[in-house]
Amino acid sequence: VPAIVTTDAIGDCLERLRAKRPLVHNITNYVVMNFSANVLLAIGASPAMVHAPEEVEEFVAISSALVVNIGTLDTNWIRSMALAAGRAKKAGIPWALDPVGAGATKLRTRTAVELLALSPTALRGNASEIIAVSGAAGHAPKGVDATVSSEQAVEAAQSLAAGRHGVVAATGATDYVVADGRRVALTGGSPLSQTVTGTGCAATALVGAFLGVEPEAVLATACGLAVLKAAAAMAGERGEGPGTFQIALLDALHRVSAADIARHVRIEAG
Amino acid sequence: VPAIVTTDAIGDCLERLRAKRPLVHNITNYVVMNFSANVLLAIGASPAMVHAPEEVEEFVAISSALVVNIGTLDTNWIRSMALAAGRAKKAGIPWALDPVGAGATKLRTRTAVELLALSPTALRGNASEIIAVSGAAGHAPKGVDATVSSEQAVEAAQSLAAGRHGVVAATGATDYVVADGRRVALTGGSPLSQTVTGTGCAATALVGAFLGVEPEAVLATACGLAVLKAAAAMAGERGEGPGTFQIALLDALHRVSAADIARHVRIEAG
Amino acid sequence: VPAIVTTDAIGDCLERLRAKRPLVHNITNYVVMNFSANVLLAIGASPAMVHAPEEVEEFVAISSALVVNIGTLDTNWIRSMALAAGRAKKAGIPWALDPVGAGATKLRTRTAVELLALSPTALRGNASEIIAVSGAAGHAPKGVDATVSSEQAVEAAQSLAAGRHGVVAATGATDYVVADGRRVALTGGSPLSQTVTGTGCAATALVGAFLGVEPEAVLATACGLAVLKAAAAMAGERGEGPGTFQIALLDALHRVSAADIARHVRIEAG
Repeated sequence: VPAIVTTDAIGDCLERLRAKRPLVHNITNYVVMNFSANVLLAIGASPAMVHAPEEVEEFVAISSALVVNIGTLDTNWIRSMALAAGRAKKAGIPWALDPVGAGATKLRTRTAVELLALSPTALRGNASEIIAVSGAAGHAPKGVDATVSSEQAVEAAQSLAAGRHGVVAATGATDYVVADGRRVALTGGSPLSQTVTGTGCAATALVGAFLGVEPEAVLATACGLAVLKAAAAMAGERGEGPGTFQIALLDALHRVSAADIARHVRIEAG
Repeated sequence: VPAIVTTDAIGDCLERLRAKRPLVHNITNYVVMNFSANVLLAIGASPAMVHAPEEVEEFVAISSALVVNIGTLDTNWIRSMALAAGRAKKAGIPWALDPVGAGATKLRTRTAVELLALSPTALRGNASEIIAVSGAAGHAPKGVDATVSSEQAVEAAQSLAAGRHGVVAATGATDYVVADGRRVALTGGSPLSQTVTGTGCAATALVGAFLGVEPEAVLATACGLAVLKAAAAMAGERGEGPGTFQIALLDALHRVSAADIARHVRIEAG
Repeated sequence: VPAIVTTDAIGDCLERLRAKRPLVHNITNYVVMNFSANVLLAIGASPAMVHAPEEVEEFVAISSALVVNIGTLDTNWIRSMALAAGRAKKAGIPWALDPVGAGATKLRTRTAVELLALSPTALRGNASEIIAVSGAAGHAPKGVDATVSSEQAVEAAQSLAAGRHGVVAATGATDYVVADGRRVALTGGSPLSQTVTGTGCAATALVGAFLGVEPEAVLATACGLAVLKAAAAMAGERGEGPGTFQIALLDALHRVSAADIARHVRIEAG
């Protein structure tokens, strides 16, 4: 029976996350490694960045969840991503995929599709990336920013989710979490999120952390996105620009509560 | 006809940058990837860090400008830098080179010289690096800090600029922008810039961003350096040390205006 | 004759560090490269991150100290670490080793042991890592967090130190600096240190910086740990969470004095 996504359910997951401190194995891009690690520590998880092909299978096996992000991919890293994801799949360890820049180059689109074949528990991208991965459009996104709204990616997300068991999230001003026959929408956050690199990657990392404590993937994905939206709204009240916003975001993730989520995020489950 | 570097001309470029949000392709060092991306987002550009040899040529072709920074080079990355720069040159896409640590090791000096042969639109370094690249001196700089003043590098910058079409910038307390028969000096900033890693790399990234909207390379280079000097001066009024200064710098880049540049930066065009 | 570790002796080292600005060669992990560089700049050292096998031996030879950190190791980087450490050993340049994640995977434990054979002047890790390296226990630490207290690692540190000339430090709420027949304990800091990635790596980087100005390794190691504990205590008074704490830590490192260490750190030499 699928869990209903409510503020209470999210608050319960958040408590379990802070109690368990799940070890989250990240194979992510160079740009956000520090920020992702700090985001995961701030929310209460235990991050590790491990990419050597000789150790990723051993490491993912002792982890609660895996996050794979192709932001600064190359052939050596792709090999490690595939090894880790393959092992996660076999061992039943949940994993999240962030197809950064899919659609921008052939290498990125192809890699995203290949990793998708390894059944990520959750796939999170901006609208351009989700559309590119779904094949609904072949246009190149501008850098790694979303240049189309998340609404425009819902159909692509649904077609991606339909053919598989995992969850697909297209994020933006409103985040859409889509699974076979389900759709949850989360609205909130801060426009300053667009001025800081890695907030999308942070969303995927947080989804990974909640997958480490909550088996129901729609709920876990919504948790990751909800805590980030609430923390961004809280940070938006303090930040005077991109720098102070980014720092306030880490502070807010550390103290964010179910009440903050209720105050700052509108959740529509459909 | 070369553009005259004035506060008004810089303000005009800044407006165009924020309107166009140029995609800036960076092949840069691990230390500053996050900071450079945040600096570019703060000023209003759209950064992407892309280094795989399989995709750099495809990616630079959809970009407005390329930034190559050899701070943490190795043979694989050098190959990607050369591929991307070669493609930029062929396609007429402007690109900026940052020869971090040139003079410190043979590998760095040789790589800087090889990349210089691919005609960067702008070359920016500290005094030691510019002197090392010009061959005017063979001494090893101490780390990547400037240990000589930018004044001492003007002659080296002029000899580098004389033999080619691009711009050469030697930065420090005063930044010198040199091209065939031209010299612009910008003075301002904050001494706290020396206490934060990657402020030089940020200067080169900003030069790249302005090259993406302004074809006149002396003006574009001066724009990148002027916004950074103005923002540093603004941040210097708020920062209590290296940490708060770095964060205030990102906030300041987000709001810096032509009026701020007029207030904080002395520009002498000669 | 071993130096006695006192606040005055540490203050004297700190003055020498700020006067000399030692060049510290780092081969460290992607996650903390930016933070480590900023920590080293804040305390007054001159950091450089250099990892290409073609240049590490040349670079370490012009450096005052080397820091090797295996946090995001792979076979290429391990080769560079061994080349640099080997050259440091031959040239009598002090070096510090951080065995991040030793015990978590075979690759990490093996690499830590191999690098230990190259006689680091100081080895610094959390309790799990020190225990794993010493072989006193084969259990896998949870990520790179300490899951056992530093007290529990003192015996392992002593057994590691007994067989060699270098210093071993097991850090945590209390930091233990152990050498043949000596033990220094430093207590202080802030619980917020646990919420920021790379504070352990920063400790090793700071130890490296002090090794660059102080030949007595117990004193140099204690200096690195003492300035970090004092700065963390100072930052803990300002930080409202992980974000503001991290920034306040850089500010505090920039202004930390012998008086601050006396106020915030309890030093027991035994």
